[in-house]
Amino acid sequence: MPKKGRILSGHRPTGQLHLGHLEGTLRIWAELQDDYECFFEIADWHALTTAFDETEMLRENIEQVAIDWLAVGLDPQRSVLFVQSDVKEHAELHLLLSMVTPVTWLERCPTYKEQRDQIGEEKTAGYGFLGYPVLQAADIVIYKADTVPVGQDQLPHLELSREIARRFNNFYGDVFPEPQAMISEFSVVPGTDGRKMSKSYNNTLDLADTPEDIAEKVRKMFTDPAKVYRGDPGHPDECPVFVYHSMYNTERTEPIKAACESGDLGCVDCKAEATEKLLAALAPIMQRRGQLEADRDTVRDILTEGATQAREVAAQTMEEVRAAMKVSR
Amino acid sequence: MPKKGRILSGHRPTGQLHLGHLEGTLRIWAELQDDYECFFEIADWHALTTAFDETEMLRENIEQVAIDWLAVGLDPQRSVLFVQSDVKEHAELHLLLSMVTPVTWLERCPTYKEQRDQIGEEKTAGYGFLGYPVLQAADIVIYKADTVPVGQDQLPHLELSREIARRFNNFYGDVFPEPQAMISEFSVVPGTDGRKMSKSYNNTLDLADTPEDIAEKVRKMFTDPAKVYRGDPGHPDECPVFVYHSMYNTERTEPIKAACESGDLGCVDCKAEATEKLLAALAPIMQRRGQLEADRDTVRDILTEGATQAREVAAQTMEEVRAAMKVSR
Repeated sequence: MPKKGRILSGHRPTGQLHLGHLEGTLRIWAELQDDYECFFEIADWHALTTAFDETEMLRENIEQVAIDWLAVGLDPQRSVLFVQSDVKEHAELHLLLSMVTPVTWLERCPTYKEQRDQIGEEKTAGYGFLGYPVLQAADIVIYKADTVPVGQDQLPHLELSREIARRFNNFYGDVFPEPQAMISEFSVVPGTDGRKMSKSYNNTLDLADTPEDIAEKVRKMFTDPAKVYRGDPGHPDECPVFVYHSMYNTERTEPIKAACESGDLGCVDCKAEATEKLLAALAPIMQRRGQLEADRDTVRDILTEGATQAREVAAQTMEEVRAAMKVSR
Repeated sequence: MPKKGRILSGHRPTGQLHLGHLEGTLRIWAELQDDYECFFEIADWHALTTAFDETEMLRENIEQVAIDWLAVGLDPQRSVLFVQSDVKEHAELHLLLSMVTPVTWLERCPTYKEQRDQIGEEKTAGYGFLGYPVLQAADIVIYKADTVPVGQDQLPHLELSREIARRFNNFYGDVFPEPQAMISEFSVVPGTDGRKMSKSYNNTLDLADTPEDIAEKVRKMFTDPAKVYRGDPGHPDECPVFVYHSMYNTERTEPIKAACESGDLGCVDCKAEATEKLLAALAPIMQRRGQLEADRDTVRDILTEGATQAREVAAQTMEEVRAAMKVSR
């Protein structure tokens, strides 16, 4: 069956992937493999745009991302899983696109100032950080990806990639398709403190956690602050644990809701049941993770093979790019 | 004999090289080959920072620079002559250095605003133009060049290269030597209008000119505006033609000066003699140029071989860079 198109997406190897990644993107990516030709990139050069001075863990983080990906079902038989820095062609295209990308486009990108405020000036002072969208554009168009699954918050970046591709095509002729956004209704998973799950909030349930880690984290989770004692009536709609029931305990969601509201169900029991269902959902991932952790060579081989496949496509595109720009060989 | 150090220098392939390049840099480079290990780069990616929309002539311009270089005595047996874009490692290092180079360093570079005013906003709006000094730093340090021959006006750029190298070394350990400036007392050659010879003034005598071109251009040269007729006393110190006598007709400089001042020597005869001496000086270059023009395969082979040699050094440096930064392979 011909595929519907080509997808490029990826993660930065900046730490463990967590339940938010799993429900927000990874399950969707795994499904997309049926219908699309998928390139999944571990974006280590992107990690350097802000974490240039914390590279100690970079190699390990790359393998951890690969293990997470494989564990949730990204499939090297059907998709290309690769490390960005293994495909040097990205750096060349980044340089060439930098010539045609106005600085003002980058300065005006809404996330630029936003991230500077959030992460702080020191980490975001670099020329490379300013040019992050140029590198991202290179990542996408070097595979001539026509489809990019994104959340609403990433739309400005993708729009910039489209504009850069368009500007290149205007100057040198049609080489790149303009990548289109595939906006998914991502599930937002609450972290242990009830806020959106995010590494920077230190509220994550990681895919690499043991069942004991998970149980302990859920045991300490925030719940409805109005429900102090077992008999107190709870408000499930304000409780992050209830979100887990609604995701992993679907056939019991209604009775749980009623029992919480009536005060019959206490938080301790409620959390124990949520943990049990969550762990049941994570069990196949944890099992596969364990196998991969014990067989790093296989993980590395998959990335090596992925890089070879990615390079083949990237090298072909670069030949077209150089010919279009009339630059040397 | 051990060499005194390693040099990196180069030209952008933006048009014909002229007498100003010959006397300002090329003769010095040719001499430096005795004492230094020299890498001479045809900086085509740099040309794109401002000329991204005029690439029609880029390949021809690259070969023209190579022919000029070879004709004046840059020697592929002793030095490495190469095209920047043939050594993709420059692009990778440029990307990595971009992570540790603060945007403010680039914005504050005195030549940035200067060039924007001179060349115009449209040509200098690019992210790549802003990052030009990062690419230049990569060019230099990827060969661990310790010496860079520069004019006074290029000192701020080299200072920036030094600062980028220092910052890299601070984060990741000593990989790069800090390149030192070798400031040469360049001869400033006047163009046909008396201003500094420069392509942008359209006042050049090109190394690719025929003897007839040269004669015609000198015939039309500006001279002392106070000397209208043969009998009028001239002011050699204000006449660009007299500069040519002082450079190419040294044993006759004094008599020429006296005869001009007395009015005995008219401009037509003076120019004819200047042309004769200039052409005598250029004759070996012109002859060699002709041979090379007729044998482009040799020129291309030299650049191919140069790229191989350059890549060997650059690839070795990149292995050290990746190991120091702890990035992937």
